[in-house]
Amino acid sequence: MKRKKIVVIGGGTGTFTVLSGLKKYRKKNNLELSAVVSMADDGGSTGILRDELGVLPPGDIRQCLVALSTSDKLMRELMSYRFERGTLKGHNFGNLLLSALEKVTGGFDKAVEKVSEILRCEGQIIPVTLKKVTLEARLKNKKKIIGQQKIFQSTLSNLDKIYLNPHARANPNAVNTILEADAVVIGPGEFYTSIIPNLLVKGIPEALQKTKAKKIYICNLMKRKEHTNGFFVKDFMKTIEKFIGCQVDAVIYNNKRPPKELIRKYARENEFPVAHLAPKSNAKGKRLYLGGDLLNKRIQAPRKGDPISRNLIRHNPERLAKLILGLLNRL
Amino acid sequence: MKRKKIVVIGGGTGTFTVLSGLKKYRKKNNLELSAVVSMADDGGSTGILRDELGVLPPGDIRQCLVALSTSDKLMRELMSYRFERGTLKGHNFGNLLLSALEKVTGGFDKAVEKVSEILRCEGQIIPVTLKKVTLEARLKNKKKIIGQQKIFQSTLSNLDKIYLNPHARANPNAVNTILEADAVVIGPGEFYTSIIPNLLVKGIPEALQKTKAKKIYICNLMKRKEHTNGFFVKDFMKTIEKFIGCQVDAVIYNNKRPPKELIRKYARENEFPVAHLAPKSNAKGKRLYLGGDLLNKRIQAPRKGDPISRNLIRHNPERLAKLILGLLNRL
Repeated sequence: MKRKKIVVIGGGTGTFTVLSGLKKYRKKNNLELSAVVSMADDGGSTGILRDELGVLPPGDIRQCLVALSTSDKLMRELMSYRFERGTLKGHNFGNLLLSALEKVTGGFDKAVEKVSEILRCEGQIIPVTLKKVTLEARLKNKKKIIGQQKIFQSTLSNLDKIYLNPHARANPNAVNTILEADAVVIGPGEFYTSIIPNLLVKGIPEALQKTKAKKIYICNLMKRKEHTNGFFVKDFMKTIEKFIGCQVDAVIYNNKRPPKELIRKYARENEFPVAHLAPKSNAKGKRLYLGGDLLNKRIQAPRKGDPISRNLIRHNPERLAKLILGLLNRL
Repeated sequence: MKRKKIVVIGGGTGTFTVLSGLKKYRKKNNLELSAVVSMADDGGSTGILRDELGVLPPGDIRQCLVALSTSDKLMRELMSYRFERGTLKGHNFGNLLLSALEKVTGGFDKAVEKVSEILRCEGQIIPVTLKKVTLEARLKNKKKIIGQQKIFQSTLSNLDKIYLNPHARANPNAVNTILEADAVVIGPGEFYTSIIPNLLVKGIPEALQKTKAKKIYICNLMKRKEHTNGFFVKDFMKTIEKFIGCQVDAVIYNNKRPPKELIRKYARENEFPVAHLAPKSNAKGKRLYLGGDLLNKRIQAPRKGDPISRNLIRHNPERLAKLILGLLNRL
């Protein structure tokens, strides 16, 4: 079977899920996997390390490294282990590893490479930029919100512009990987704070416009009142297309309603299922819409140190992978 | 050549030096190396981790793991990397690795084993006990000094008793390794705070009395006014013998005076060269005395993150190794 190159663009948990799913089909389907990862994170352990040590944000990269790791369970658990007490409280071990290696090697990219070697990653994890950037949002009332974490917590209904400060050029490795890919998968993930920050990096939209790779957008399962209030699948897609400056080739979305008790739980956090209105054919353009039951039924209560412990309504990794691979043959 | 088993008993920098020296002759001389390591350390990064996380002390173990590592320079530098700023300031990365792994695996011995695998250690690093212990000293005026770090800083001229609280049994692996060894090397290292704490563990003196291994004591280069004031080589040796309850077979000591400027530097810290008075033959007993120029001439100013940066008057690892190997053939 011809080798196929798939690159996933995103950040934390959503990208972890897609990569974990694709990893299972890697050998059988002769896949070459990589991930282009947002560098705008500034919350939690990552934020403290950025502030105190002046390093690049390790959190999202760590999750992707774990997703592509073929080392034993202990090593993967170690990477996600979160210290529970004292001055180290809240730090993921993997974040400390990446930050220490950045200091020792003098470069975040070299640190990622070394951890990738330690974890025997099958595939490449690529920071979207190697410049230190802050995600900023400007509202129509001229108010500025500075920092990814602050933006995550703020209402963007009045959003005028979202941008990186300073402007950042893409990691050349990210650009080349997109240009040489057979498929680029965008999302799922925190929309304005994990996915879009990749598309704000100079060179990434250009690469997406230029590449012959099929562009597949995986829509989020949930919308947030603060950021994506009233969004249907097509609104997510249209926003992505606005940022990349071209159409995507396919959209994967969930059409199964999550269990009532989970919907109620999420509603308390102002999060609601994304409606799966089948778009009318004339609205389709050349895009392929692929709906399915994408919910992960096997989700259990989050365990300590679990890298994907924030949500209980999540994508099923295997189903995502199957849909992506199916699309690769159809597109 | 017949395989020879050498076990080094000690703690931090001194043991690092002996192991580093022996490692170079490992293949050529068919050596099987191991180290039995003190678990009384409670200063610096190690002390904070003990206090805050309730883990066993990682610092001395880390240095020995690095000494026996055959992995690349970057991995060894990473292990010794010390965070320089923020809440992580002063922590060695390797200490964090051992402590996180102790939490994830549920056992310090399992953590040591895993790091040993990651660092491709050629030889075994064995915590002398797996019990949480505190080193305590009682002076003749009944005053108690509690904790290894406090004892290190205090004057012991009035020492009545030094002991571990609570009493600790030896790690069975340490006992077996001593029993099966061809040679046991004791020291060099901080005398009352790195070397003796091993000999206070129930089962270690007994194993040393019972083993057929040749017991070699490597005397310190310097004596400290606070702890070993007025000690000659034979006083160090006699004290060791008192704690192990039997004679050693050989004593290795330095007979070369360090450079004046270094002696002056050390004098400011109340440290002075150990005099190498050749013992009179009737005082020798059956012990073999082996003096030589053991000074490391290649010592440079300590570098950041260097695991052996505390002293500038140090043993030459290769010469120590050659003397030990020579003794193995003679004894």
